[in-house]
Amino acid sequence: MKWALIGASRIAAEQMIRAIRAQQDNAVTAVLSGDAERAQAYAEAHEIDQAYTDLDALLADSSVDAVYISTTNEKHHPQAMAAIAAGKHVMCEKPLAMSVADARDMVAAADAAGLTFATNHHLRNAGTHLKIRELIAAGRIGKVQAVRVAHAVYLPENLHGWRLDNPAAGGGVIPDIVVHDADTVRFHLQEDPESVVAIERNESLGQGVEDSVMSVWQMPSGVLVETHEGFTIRHAGTSFEVHGTEGSILAQGVMTPVPVGKIVLRQDGADTPVPFSNHDLYERSVRHFVDAVAGSGAPAATGIDGIKSLAVALAVKKAATSGRRTTVDYGEA
Amino acid sequence: MKWALIGASRIAAEQMIRAIRAQQDNAVTAVLSGDAERAQAYAEAHEIDQAYTDLDALLADSSVDAVYISTTNEKHHPQAMAAIAAGKHVMCEKPLAMSVADARDMVAAADAAGLTFATNHHLRNAGTHLKIRELIAAGRIGKVQAVRVAHAVYLPENLHGWRLDNPAAGGGVIPDIVVHDADTVRFHLQEDPESVVAIERNESLGQGVEDSVMSVWQMPSGVLVETHEGFTIRHAGTSFEVHGTEGSILAQGVMTPVPVGKIVLRQDGADTPVPFSNHDLYERSVRHFVDAVAGSGAPAATGIDGIKSLAVALAVKKAATSGRRTTVDYGEA
Repeated sequence: MKWALIGASRIAAEQMIRAIRAQQDNAVTAVLSGDAERAQAYAEAHEIDQAYTDLDALLADSSVDAVYISTTNEKHHPQAMAAIAAGKHVMCEKPLAMSVADARDMVAAADAAGLTFATNHHLRNAGTHLKIRELIAAGRIGKVQAVRVAHAVYLPENLHGWRLDNPAAGGGVIPDIVVHDADTVRFHLQEDPESVVAIERNESLGQGVEDSVMSVWQMPSGVLVETHEGFTIRHAGTSFEVHGTEGSILAQGVMTPVPVGKIVLRQDGADTPVPFSNHDLYERSVRHFVDAVAGSGAPAATGIDGIKSLAVALAVKKAATSGRRTTVDYGEA
Repeated sequence: MKWALIGASRIAAEQMIRAIRAQQDNAVTAVLSGDAERAQAYAEAHEIDQAYTDLDALLADSSVDAVYISTTNEKHHPQAMAAIAAGKHVMCEKPLAMSVADARDMVAAADAAGLTFATNHHLRNAGTHLKIRELIAAGRIGKVQAVRVAHAVYLPENLHGWRLDNPAAGGGVIPDIVVHDADTVRFHLQEDPESVVAIERNESLGQGVEDSVMSVWQMPSGVLVETHEGFTIRHAGTSFEVHGTEGSILAQGVMTPVPVGKIVLRQDGADTPVPFSNHDLYERSVRHFVDAVAGSGAPAATGIDGIKSLAVALAVKKAATSGRRTTVDYGEA
């Protein structure tokens, strides 16, 4: 399968090009950037044949089977719609779009065209999270009662830019990180947050966007979820905890694209370390996508998963700005 | 100093009688219970001279200098007002009362009478919390950015009763535990929560009261605080985390009356264990009270501290039931 990169991005350079090339018979053959020099330099640096500045020209290349979209968030919808119209399979970065309606539009168009559409939520591909899900599904902690997610980090200096100053491009910690926590919680609990409350803050780095938020979500089962996302917290590390009637799962350093971390199963005061696979998250994500295109299985995170994580993030934003408990609006199915 | 126990309670039996007797020249000379048999049995079991069922009779004993009130919450106000009118110093269990107005009434009456009034918030007397406060005050974590409090536990079977089924007596996890977290956060940050959002839940144990709650608080400085309180969580343990620009303090197992726990100072991924004193929490609380009565210093937690922790808990309850961000109402000073 031949891939085009829509967006000459850091995430593609650091993760996706390698992940695509790790699949048998998969190649990255084209890259698009709005800036001609950047497109050319990126193509050379990563040994990609074609550099484009015009999306239609790229999509006219009938040898391209799939696109990976990693531009700023407001561009995802028009670019995905154009790619789908041109018959390309789509793997899109999170959040899928600026609104649930736009995200639903993209996913419906791909469905109608019989194309594979995936959201690149990497965390549910991690060995840590696959193991946590396995422990929950096997009943190792009994009935789940509560989840606590600590995902407040320091945004690396090389990512400062639109994430900190451009709300129109999807800047702010809520679109950037809450979507990850929403997808991860949905993956583990197999249910969708129903309503949320939140307080956001612009502590230091944000310029017109929030750089910190804490929120509480209620799940349909009644389970309460507490999350903390931040761009300004240097030393805390991340954690993901699931508490149940028969035990607690406490995972440290697992909200990360790197296949590291630590999981313990705590029961009656005794902590048992739990081993997990340290495979590459992005390679697994791409492998599932490639298999789905070939007619086998589904992407690790589907378009519906992307719609839902976006809907949760938008509800958290609305709750934070309105001060009201907000029902998550997943839109029309 | 001679003490009377108002309430033949478990907390007095397990902690306060010992803590009072540990002070030089302090004795427990009387106990009150609504039930004559219970009063008598309790007095015998704990070698207390006088057993009362009538508060006025107890307060008429001019040899009694101070009372420790540990009845159910709705009784604190009338009992404290009567004790103050009789010229007794008062140490009162948390929450001070059912309303901020009642709590202010009690504290104002004691002030007007020149009597010492304390709230028995034990946690700020713990070696762990004294050390955490010391680290923050010394600037070891730089500027504080965020606090996370995990205080969801399993209510011991022997405490099941009014806490789980009697809202009129102050049942529910919010009056019982949120007040502790409010006092502890105020102690560490030296500021009072401004507004809160919350979701509560009655998961399994509560009968007409909430047994679980998660909330987010904003402090005047902008610091965000996230808390989780519960009566139904068996395996999680407790924790208290303070995150700052120069480091994070991560304390485990410290939301407890027992002088145990673990503190680490995390900076740039390296965890340094921090030693702390393991003195008895209640003995320290009583010692400060006795010293204050003698004219030296103030109680560890004053009446004002008790008013404020109650105000935060009431705001969390209001936010949880209304679904709205709620400004904490500390009442008229």
